[in-house]
Formats: sequence, structure tokens, C-alpha cells
Amino acid sequence: MSDKGWSNVDVVRATNVTWHHSHAGRESRQHLMHQRGATLWFTGLSAAGKSTIAFTLEHMLIERGFMTYVLDGDNVRHGLNKNLGFSAEDRAENIRRIGEVAKLFADAGLITMTSFISPYRVDRDKVRDLHEEADIPFLEIFTDTPIEVCEQRDPKGLYRRARSGELKLFTGVDDPYEPPSTPEITVHPGRMSAPECALVIIEELARRGILRHDEERE
Amino acid sequence: MSDKGWSNVDVVRATNVTWHHSHAGRESRQHLMHQRGATLWFTGLSAAGKSTIAFTLEHMLIERGFMTYVLDGDNVRHGLNKNLGFSAEDRAENIRRIGEVAKLFADAGLITMTSFISPYRVDRDKVRDLHEEADIPFLEIFTDTPIEVCEQRDPKGLYRRARSGELKLFTGVDDPYEPPSTPEITVHPGRMSAPECALVIIEELARRGILRHDEERE
Repeated sequence: MSDKGWSNVDVVRATNVTWHHSHAGRESRQHLMHQRGATLWFTGLSAAGKSTIAFTLEHMLIERGFMTYVLDGDNVRHGLNKNLGFSAEDRAENIRRIGEVAKLFADAGLITMTSFISPYRVDRDKVRDLHEEADIPFLEIFTDTPIEVCEQRDPKGLYRRARSGELKLFTGVDDPYEPPSTPEITVHPGRMSAPECALVIIEELARRGILRHDEERE
Repeated sequence: MSDKGWSNVDVVRATNVTWHHSHAGRESRQHLMHQRGATLWFTGLSAAGKSTIAFTLEHMLIERGFMTYVLDGDNVRHGLNKNLGFSAEDRAENIRRIGEVAKLFADAGLITMTSFISPYRVDRDKVRDLHEEADIPFLEIFTDTPIEVCEQRDPKGLYRRARSGELKLFTGVDDPYEPPSTPEITVHPGRMSAPECALVIIEELARRGILRHDEERE
């Protein structure tokens, strides 16, 4: 983008602003963005395709002019959650923090995707409650890829290491994955391409009024 | 906003998307938003006017079509950081997490404001480093209100309680406030109104190319 800023004359033009302490609020941001902030919570086994679908969806939404952000291991585990390990307590805290941050992003008006295995129903349900209390849409997206397919893909060799006993408490091998009982969306990356899965999600976002109608855009 | 979504025909129109795992990236988001993501880190005494200026600035930026978000005690202390107390260790962790989240918001393309006393230089400098490593603009905004003025305002009666000894380790009373040595912006809410302070900041954002030039907007 350009390095030029507004000219000062444009920038400082008079405006009626009251000095009061109140949030400009979700409404005005959402109006500006032509969308409703929401959290799309991808859950599924390692190598199920969560991140691939999330980034494909992000790409397609940006192409359509919507504002998105993906929270995943790359930007969370090495930053905000770098002081957490893999104990039961730390795993729960990991999901809790991600849930809180996703809620803030959605409150800011973004279509926010999280891409984490998040194997335990109780942790995901707490994040759902958090959103519902704040009246922020929360869509659980079950990335339903059979473990045989995930294990065959095994891009990082993690299943192999878990089967050999080198990795302990690996989801689907020696630690349970609890599928959502009533996910808002289920995608089947074993049977569909990532763009096809992403389109399923876009249709659902449109149906729920999270993406604003085309002709309403300026 | 409308509850109507896009029609399915609009939504599913063909698009060339490759199935590859990569971030759509800061660049495309920033292009879409006509702005550069940045963190504006307000620091100053309790009752110095940090939040008032931040929310006034948010209002003025939204009016001008920019995307912003304010992280403050209200949305952080009771959520992400609700499991932190006020020990030295927890205070540092409080600022660390806020810094990490602000960085994510700025990476998402938003003009992100944080409104916390953040009294210690070492904590703020760590947040600055975090941003500089990621090439994300970080502007420290010293909200320079004399303690006499803050104490006279005392909207929550905190100074009174600190002076009486009821509150311990209160910044400016029995715990130090370390002013920034080279803040990008200094505002003087004791001598200027909040909108005037906000305009000073907007001019600086424009000068630095964080707000995009008017005629470049569609």
C-alpha cells in the first residue's frame, strides 16, 4: 500500500464528537464492514484439513470483500500461549484463551476462524457459552475426516510418532476426540475439495445473515 | 444490519482458489481496509484520560471509515486475563498477553488501541520488540496528565483509597509509574480536550501512512 497519508487538511476536518467514555460499538463496526462478526470454530483430528479449509475460506472471503482472521497454532502457540504446555490444565487454558481472543475478534466485527483440534466437548462448550452470553454468533465446524484418511496424510509424521509410542496423549491414538453432538456445520474433506468445503460454509454464513447482501454494499 | 444473506447464486459463483495452506496475509487485508494495521499503546496514570481518548479516537476513525478496536480493562480483565491477579508476575503476564493480542489484531489489519496504565518500561518495551520483530507499527502514546489532575478527577475514588492505605501498590502513590523515554506521541489531556488529543494522533497516523490517502479510497 501507499506510504502517503491523508493530507492534514482532510484529516483534521471538523467533526462532532462528544467527550464521553463509551464504545463506538459492534454495530457501527459491522455496518462499516458489511458483515456480522462471528467465530467459526473448526474442530477435528490432526491432519483433518481444518487449517487448509480455514485459509481457503479466508482467501475466498477476502476476494468477496469481507474481513477475516485465522487464529491457529502458528500465530497463537508461539505467541499468546507460548507459556502453556500440554498438561490437561494447560490444554484447557489454551482453548479458553483462544476462545476469549476469538470473541474479541468477533466483537471487533471480523469473521474469525480458529483452527485447533480442540478435542474435548466441555472446552468447546465453554467457548460457545462465552459467545452466546455476549450475543456473538458461534459456529462449530466439525471437520469430519476419518482417522484412516488423516493417518494416511500425516503431513508432519505425527501419527507415525504416536503409533510408535514416541508421542504420548495424541488425539485419536491414545487420547479421545469427542466429536460435536450438534455442530452448526459439518464438512467432509475426505470427500470434497477445500474450496468445496469453504463454499458450504459461505452458504451457511450467507443464510445466517453474517455476510451482508450484495446489493446492500456500496 | 439486514438479516438477508447473499443469494446462493451470488455466493457460490465460480472462483479460482488453489488448495494450498498459506495465509491470505496482512497485505490483502490492509488493501481491503484502506489502512495499515498498527498498535497504539496508551500508557499513563489511572484517570489520565487514556480510555476517553481511545474511545473518542475510535469514534472519529470509524466516522472516517477506518477499522479499529480498543482493548481495555472492560473487555480484557474480565475475559482473557480473568485468571490473573495483581502480583508482580501476574501484572507482567497481563501486559504480555495484551501485547500478544494487540499484535494479532494489528496483523489482522485493525488500528488497535490498548488502554492500560502499563507502568513499567520493561513490560512495554517487550511489547514493542514483539511488534518490531513482526514489522507491525507500534506507537507508544504517553497520556501525560499530572498526578494532581488525575487525583482531582479520581472518578472511581481509587486515589482516595490508595492514599488512605486501603489500596496497596497503587501506581503513582506507592508504586512507580515509569514514563516512556521516547514515546511516538505525547498527549496532554490536562490542557486539551479528548477530541483535540485524538486529532493529534490522527495527524500522526496519517503522517506515518497508517491511514490511507483519501483519493485512493474507492
